[in-house]
Amino acid sequence: MNSKLSKIQIAIKSLIEINDEEWGYYSAMFNIRHYNKKEVLLQSGKICDRIFFINKGLLRIFFLDKEGNESTFYFSQENDFAVDYESFINHTSSNYTIEAMENTQVVHMSYKMVLDGYKKLRYGEKLGRLLAEKYFIIFSRKIQNIYTKTPYERYKLMDLQFPNIRQRVPQHYIASYLNISSVHLSRLINKRY
Amino acid sequence: MNSKLSKIQIAIKSLIEINDEEWGYYSAMFNIRHYNKKEVLLQSGKICDRIFFINKGLLRIFFLDKEGNESTFYFSQENDFAVDYESFINHTSSNYTIEAMENTQVVHMSYKMVLDGYKKLRYGEKLGRLLAEKYFIIFSRKIQNIYTKTPYERYKLMDLQFPNIRQRVPQHYIASYLNISSVHLSRLINKRY
Repeated sequence: MNSKLSKIQIAIKSLIEINDEEWGYYSAMFNIRHYNKKEVLLQSGKICDRIFFINKGLLRIFFLDKEGNESTFYFSQENDFAVDYESFINHTSSNYTIEAMENTQVVHMSYKMVLDGYKKLRYGEKLGRLLAEKYFIIFSRKIQNIYTKTPYERYKLMDLQFPNIRQRVPQHYIASYLNISSVHLSRLINKRY
Repeated sequence: MNSKLSKIQIAIKSLIEINDEEWGYYSAMFNIRHYNKKEVLLQSGKICDRIFFINKGLLRIFFLDKEGNESTFYFSQENDFAVDYESFINHTSSNYTIEAMENTQVVHMSYKMVLDGYKKLRYGEKLGRLLAEKYFIIFSRKIQNIYTKTPYERYKLMDLQFPNIRQRVPQHYIASYLNISSVHLSRLINKRY
């Protein structure tokens, strides 16, 4: 078996039952791609027609706020997925840009492949449901964090959600993720750590 | 057929194929309930163990922000669903409260019933996926609205999403939904309409 597919196989098997025959059929449709640091995997305005699974490396997902500033929405690390899921399921222009923060190896799952999976895998629809639920939870927590958590609480939650992220990305992306200024972030770090 | 189930039957049939035998089995598990204006259907802190479908009336979904103020998240009108979906799928305490804004007739879908549907309806998992996608889209748009839209743009989008809502709920709930003060809302209305 292609060892570059071993991590996504584990990820999918943690969600649904998939037998060897199904895996053989399904796995033939994956594509492996390498992106250099700073390379853009998805540009906002384009339709997101694939889901990215990270074998190695780190992706940042961001959008432009009403002042035209980048707002970091999410970091996808090893063994996680990255996608503009609304663009993906509705075939609408993406609001998000996805860029590599490190040299990154990803597995591409195309839209066609996911649709095929719904029909041809015994538990394809369940896989779709669990992925939709996963993205729902990410967005649900984001909203709760915005409205109900202080910047310090958001900072602590970020550490839990993205272990070692502070060692992997420049501080201004952390500030942008937390929706606070870099000055505010420095003050938080100096006060509490 | 129970005429109180005709609207939810249409809603479900718009999502999946369901034959008479399946509908007979599934529909026997619905419950019809009436709530008076101001009555609470789900209290935050409790586990949300059912999805509400609105036959007639209007529900408001809100949470408390970090200052302890009510923040209106969503209005569910006729033919729409209402749920704290994160609490529902994860069996965690609800962050949201759901209350009736008018005398409201709802159809209850219990957690057990939804799980049963995943297994026993031919397209049960697909129904689950489409409901998860629906909630994902609501949350995704909410985040885009918060970060990328002006209060006036949010106001216009609200009119599209919830027709006639301004005639059905007191103005302070509209302000709370738009995440602006009542004074700001009055100024918006006077300037633009």
